[in-house]
Amino acid sequence: MCEADAYIRKKGETDYVLLLSSVDKVIPGETGILLESVFGEQKMLTAKINEMSLVDHKILLEHF
Amino acid sequence: MCEADAYIRKKGETDYVLLLSSVDKVIPGETGILLESVFGEQKMLTAKINEMSLVDHKILLEHF
Repeated sequence: MCEADAYIRKKGETDYVLLLSSVDKVIPGETGILLESVFGEQKMLTAKINEMSLVDHKILLEHF
Repeated sequence: MCEADAYIRKKGETDYVLLLSSVDKVIPGETGILLESVFGEQKMLTAKINEMSLVDHKILLEHF
């Protein structure tokens, strides 16, 4: 499977923490990002995508 | 490998066209999005992410 793990950090910080594993869908919206895992778990958060590396299975997010 | 194919459509249109295959990295910036394939090919474009489905290997973009 090709899901990725989503990590997030606070604005200006350097360290990321795991937010949600096995992410399938990433849907940015007006006010934030909706993540959905392969198990159907959803997380909506006010953040932006810093970088995604699909080969490394990593989604790096940052709070506004 | 878990790369995805990036498709793009013009604002307000319904049909997507293939933009770049085998995308590894997706890096949104102030003025647009940088895509990089596993082969090192890069494309920078003024667009936003509509939706990504990693399990389906699809990145759907839309021009501003």
